[in-house]
Amino acid sequence: MNTRFLDACWGKPVDRTPVWLMRQAGRYLPEYMAVRSKCTFLELCKTPELAAEVTIQPVDILGVDAAILFSDILTPVEPMGMKLDFVPGPVFENPIRSMADVDKLRIPQMEQDVPYVLETLKILRRELASKVPLIGFGGAPFTLACYMVEGKGSKDFAQIKRMMYTAPEVYGALMDKITTMSMEYLNAQIKAGAQCIQIFDTWGGILSPADYERYILPYTTTLINGLNRVETPVIHFVKGAATMLPIVQKAGGDVMGLDWHVNLGTARDILGSAMGVQGNLDPTVLYATREIIEREVKRVLDENADRPGHIFNLGHGILPTVPPENAKFMVECVHRLSQK
Amino acid sequence: MNTRFLDACWGKPVDRTPVWLMRQAGRYLPEYMAVRSKCTFLELCKTPELAAEVTIQPVDILGVDAAILFSDILTPVEPMGMKLDFVPGPVFENPIRSMADVDKLRIPQMEQDVPYVLETLKILRRELASKVPLIGFGGAPFTLACYMVEGKGSKDFAQIKRMMYTAPEVYGALMDKITTMSMEYLNAQIKAGAQCIQIFDTWGGILSPADYERYILPYTTTLINGLNRVETPVIHFVKGAATMLPIVQKAGGDVMGLDWHVNLGTARDILGSAMGVQGNLDPTVLYATREIIEREVKRVLDENADRPGHIFNLGHGILPTVPPENAKFMVECVHRLSQK
Repeated sequence: MNTRFLDACWGKPVDRTPVWLMRQAGRYLPEYMAVRSKCTFLELCKTPELAAEVTIQPVDILGVDAAILFSDILTPVEPMGMKLDFVPGPVFENPIRSMADVDKLRIPQMEQDVPYVLETLKILRRELASKVPLIGFGGAPFTLACYMVEGKGSKDFAQIKRMMYTAPEVYGALMDKITTMSMEYLNAQIKAGAQCIQIFDTWGGILSPADYERYILPYTTTLINGLNRVETPVIHFVKGAATMLPIVQKAGGDVMGLDWHVNLGTARDILGSAMGVQGNLDPTVLYATREIIEREVKRVLDENADRPGHIFNLGHGILPTVPPENAKFMVECVHRLSQK
Repeated sequence: MNTRFLDACWGKPVDRTPVWLMRQAGRYLPEYMAVRSKCTFLELCKTPELAAEVTIQPVDILGVDAAILFSDILTPVEPMGMKLDFVPGPVFENPIRSMADVDKLRIPQMEQDVPYVLETLKILRRELASKVPLIGFGGAPFTLACYMVEGKGSKDFAQIKRMMYTAPEVYGALMDKITTMSMEYLNAQIKAGAQCIQIFDTWGGILSPADYERYILPYTTTLINGLNRVETPVIHFVKGAATMLPIVQKAGGDVMGLDWHVNLGTARDILGSAMGVQGNLDPTVLYATREIIEREVKRVLDENADRPGHIFNLGHGILPTVPPENAKFMVECVHRLSQK
């Protein structure tokens, strides 16, 4: 078993910098498209054998140091009582707008309501046993709330912010319920075999630092504190958080995921040595020539300056039109340039 | 004449914090919609009497301390030889993809090619003489290049970044040409009566700090250095720049526009006392109750802590569905809470 990734999560020294890519199992891989062509996206998430197959693909094809469960952050939201569709972006037929809507939401029984997620993890632990560690994941409460209240993607998130500002009791009740659900969902993933948990707060960066502290931080803190993380490190990724790292850091977790809008060295100086970092190459660099991919990988490694506790990654998910050979070359560069 | 705004641009003391709103002449105002209902958006930009009328509306309705020319950042790009349409977002029929495309671009003769812009400014200076100062504006070279290369809005800006990384000579030639055009365009605005220039780099924040420094900074620096700004302060607004303020500051200018993702006091500490700041309320706060609008205005003013050189503004354009009375209340709060 390659333990480079978990060692780095715990801040231990490693022989080379571990690397994986957010959305590494996805549309840019022809092998993924071959599986995906036979079913819908949701069917793929709900069929353990297929979900496990696409999860493992990038481990074999790219040589990454960790696998991440193939699923969607909205998977556990559907059994809360929300009709979910992908067209191709996620759409909820019945967005949350009132206390009555919140009251109707139920906390799923994970073994009954998302058995396919837990089954996928179990298959993966067996199949990955001699290879790499397995990452489970979930959306942060605020990001899930954004989708549940907006009902779909949004440019300005007016609905959720309006709720936050004008109906704080509805917002609070919703966030409490999502936090409870997320805690049970992620603990079920740990029980089923996830060796690390990444929390994705894709929309946490849409608020000002003061509003993040008021409207998001308490819930994410409760969530992270409630995870069975003695043996399971937690990576907390808040996109757009680089201007408020000291606040986001208060939520806890072992590793901070960084997008590409910050110098990685500056972020480490702010976070201190007790917390690791994950990131942070601009995903579009994978459209570049090999020369520039190598230059940019080197720049990120140089910014880290050999400090322990760095996991290399993109600053956001890999883009669907990236040539797979460029992703593979990036992984090779990370391993070659970071070799001790 | 209310000189509060210009005084603050120069870092001089003021009786109350000046305030205006990005996109203050726009769709949220019924008075604007009444004018707009009679013509297309581009016709409105190109008809000086109408453009001047909607420019002045928020001065009278909201009581703001500055007027900003009603126009679009793409106005001077059209006469470079690019067919522009709004559907309703901007679309170029013939996006730039090669050196041949760049070679075909011409530098407009401002008096002949955008006479309506200059005429609008002249009308406005007469009509605003006893009221408030007049701001002219333009897009930063990179933001204009984004639209010209992508051809329309984009989520990941893959086309422009691919050009930047794989065809740097095409990218450089395009940026040079846009920089020259912008310099002539903004100097023509100053000559026609603009008393301050705001440069909008809406997409400058999509790059990493290292890439900003390499691919954007040289061009914006050339542009700002080339402006006739002895009597005309320059506000440089780069959305998403809060993680790289020391780099962006090198471009020059008198005031840094800030989005809402940064604590305004922290930004001032980084920028030092020689540069003013403009911002930075989250635009969605205008959906909130009066109590919360007032709380948030106070927070931003408190973060500034009475330092000279602060112009109050939103951190991005006002949203089209904001109630005008909330914008008016925000302006009142700024004036009331900042009164010396």
